[in-house]
Amino acid sequence: MSVTGPAGFVAAGGAIGIKAGGVADLAVVATADGRPVPAAGVFTANLAPAAPVQVSREHLVSTGGMAAAVVITSGNANAATGPAGRAAAAGLCQVVAEGIGAEEPEVLVGQTGLIGVPFPYDDVIGAVGPVVAERGPDEAHASMAARAILTTDTVTKEARVERPGFSLGAMAKGAAMLAPNLATMLAVITTDARLGPADLRRALVAAVGPSFNSLTVDGCTSTNDTVFLLASGATGAVDPPAFEEALSAVCASLAYQMAADAEGASKVVRIRVTGAASEADAHQAARRVAESQLVKCSLNGEDPYWGRLVSELGTAGVAFDPDRVTISYGGIAVCAGGVEIVHDEAAVRAHMARRDIDVLCQLGLGEGEGAVLTTDLGHGYIDENRTTS
Amino acid sequence: MSVTGPAGFVAAGGAIGIKAGGVADLAVVATADGRPVPAAGVFTANLAPAAPVQVSREHLVSTGGMAAAVVITSGNANAATGPAGRAAAAGLCQVVAEGIGAEEPEVLVGQTGLIGVPFPYDDVIGAVGPVVAERGPDEAHASMAARAILTTDTVTKEARVERPGFSLGAMAKGAAMLAPNLATMLAVITTDARLGPADLRRALVAAVGPSFNSLTVDGCTSTNDTVFLLASGATGAVDPPAFEEALSAVCASLAYQMAADAEGASKVVRIRVTGAASEADAHQAARRVAESQLVKCSLNGEDPYWGRLVSELGTAGVAFDPDRVTISYGGIAVCAGGVEIVHDEAAVRAHMARRDIDVLCQLGLGEGEGAVLTTDLGHGYIDENRTTS
Repeated sequence: MSVTGPAGFVAAGGAIGIKAGGVADLAVVATADGRPVPAAGVFTANLAPAAPVQVSREHLVSTGGMAAAVVITSGNANAATGPAGRAAAAGLCQVVAEGIGAEEPEVLVGQTGLIGVPFPYDDVIGAVGPVVAERGPDEAHASMAARAILTTDTVTKEARVERPGFSLGAMAKGAAMLAPNLATMLAVITTDARLGPADLRRALVAAVGPSFNSLTVDGCTSTNDTVFLLASGATGAVDPPAFEEALSAVCASLAYQMAADAEGASKVVRIRVTGAASEADAHQAARRVAESQLVKCSLNGEDPYWGRLVSELGTAGVAFDPDRVTISYGGIAVCAGGVEIVHDEAAVRAHMARRDIDVLCQLGLGEGEGAVLTTDLGHGYIDENRTTS
Repeated sequence: MSVTGPAGFVAAGGAIGIKAGGVADLAVVATADGRPVPAAGVFTANLAPAAPVQVSREHLVSTGGMAAAVVITSGNANAATGPAGRAAAAGLCQVVAEGIGAEEPEVLVGQTGLIGVPFPYDDVIGAVGPVVAERGPDEAHASMAARAILTTDTVTKEARVERPGFSLGAMAKGAAMLAPNLATMLAVITTDARLGPADLRRALVAAVGPSFNSLTVDGCTSTNDTVFLLASGATGAVDPPAFEEALSAVCASLAYQMAADAEGASKVVRIRVTGAASEADAHQAARRVAESQLVKCSLNGEDPYWGRLVSELGTAGVAFDPDRVTISYGGIAVCAGGVEIVHDEAAVRAHMARRDIDVLCQLGLGEGEGAVLTTDLGHGYIDENRTTS
């Protein structure tokens, strides 16, 4: 049921002709009655934000954090498209607003695809209304919406969490450019809990830190990254800590699903750093290791080449003493005090052959801890990204 | 003639058994008479420096910047090898010093290869003396030395610059981990000019900035990066600016040769950023673009996907306004004011098909300029780096 699981939401997905061959490229998630509810958004930190990011930010400001719908298109990022791109993003909101009986600023918009290609507004806008008119509350509609937002993803990403008195549902896309501060990832999360815009925003910012913002595939931060959260309030008030826990579970699930479906990746790797001088150091070191092309090649080759980890830790820009570091794969220490130690090589090999790999770097300096989720680097990533055609 | 071109130097190269199959793995560059001359070294900024880096730094300090020889081994980085590694690096210096009639601190050492593997000192040390004894001043000896320092390099890197009254010669290795602040690159530069240790060091630091430190293949900074410069003084005093110009030319040549031979690379790409708010911003932005996995994949595919450049510039951590940016490939502007403009697509395609690609990002904000040399990212890089075996 994903986004339509929580009470009070409907969804639709269909094709409007951005992608060739009638492939689904438009998704809408709306309140069942078309009335605005508390909403929050978290966006890319890229200084060249796409038109939909600019428009959605303005809409959330002008409504004071309320929204009646989210519209997402795939196949064209509508980024680096200038004033025409902004008009197109606003136009999509306007047409969806008309379809559900809301106002344009009450609709949020996300888009994903190639950067720098003019959005074919005139060719597709006429097809939006009919898709919106087909919206519904059942699983089939939610699934169509989840499919319509995909680009190079191979599978849909959906999540559902039920807790006493409330629930959350979510859909997301993202298979590359998953990096510092979001990714070309788009996510829509719905809940039937009742929270105000400020509480929603606080909970969302807290939840994206250890999930989407601790996920990196290639270190690139997209122009389009967006996470939306809408709260219908249908099931009444909720305890904020309980809501934050559930929201974090949803975000963690989506982040894992994105790593597992990353372009050309064969491994999902958790890089943990403990014993850092500070928590910030731990995160920075984990990210440095996770984004190292050389480390990612070793992971692709299932090679526990711990020397590369030490080398990356030494250039992470954090406090580091090679004589104190311990490196473990799957809980088996291979290096201690900065040099190789006798270890069960067969057990390490077996761990490296798994799809999910755990790497632990203990710095021996303090109490700082952090973790980043990443992938290996294989031929598939290059094949996917070498040309846009 | 490379390192033996300048008057006063001899060289040797041979096999001591670090690499299998009798492949050359030891190089020595020494003064012809075994007496120390002014010398300078620039080393990796990695906080886990290899044993030879630690030993060479100590030697330069203890001699006040004098050296009679440089010894380089390939096939084992002698990094993350603890006290035994430091003893091995010092032992190599000691044996070479005995061979040429100098003291141990007058010999500098560089090593390259796998990290974290104990250096097989006892197995190889006996073979060092005979190689040192074979040293000579001719081209054949210089070539043997240049070959002996290679790892995954496919060709030797040598440079020779002659100026009125003095000359320089150099050899280098480096084919990956070429990154911020040197690389797993080793270089030995000789000159017959007469300069003191302080002037030599100043000139070397100035020369590595726009050459080796503006070269990045994978963003990884090695544990072993080292550049040595020795001045025999055989041809007398030199004008410091003239010397710096010649030294910069040598370093630029070596840096280009390393990029052109980088693991799996098919392109040598110069990323230039102009109009940045400051020179530091320009360098940082150029490096961000140069290190982007996505940009490097596009270069591999010969795809002028300028949208990715805009996206990377937007996350470079520098002042940026997408509405002011102009992007050009080979002098042909494809984007101006942040949006695509009409351009000669066939001419751009022809430029992208070349081995040497020029990318210019004009930010339109100030006077800051910077450039970084990089490569594309192809299957070959992954194949070379996925396993150590």
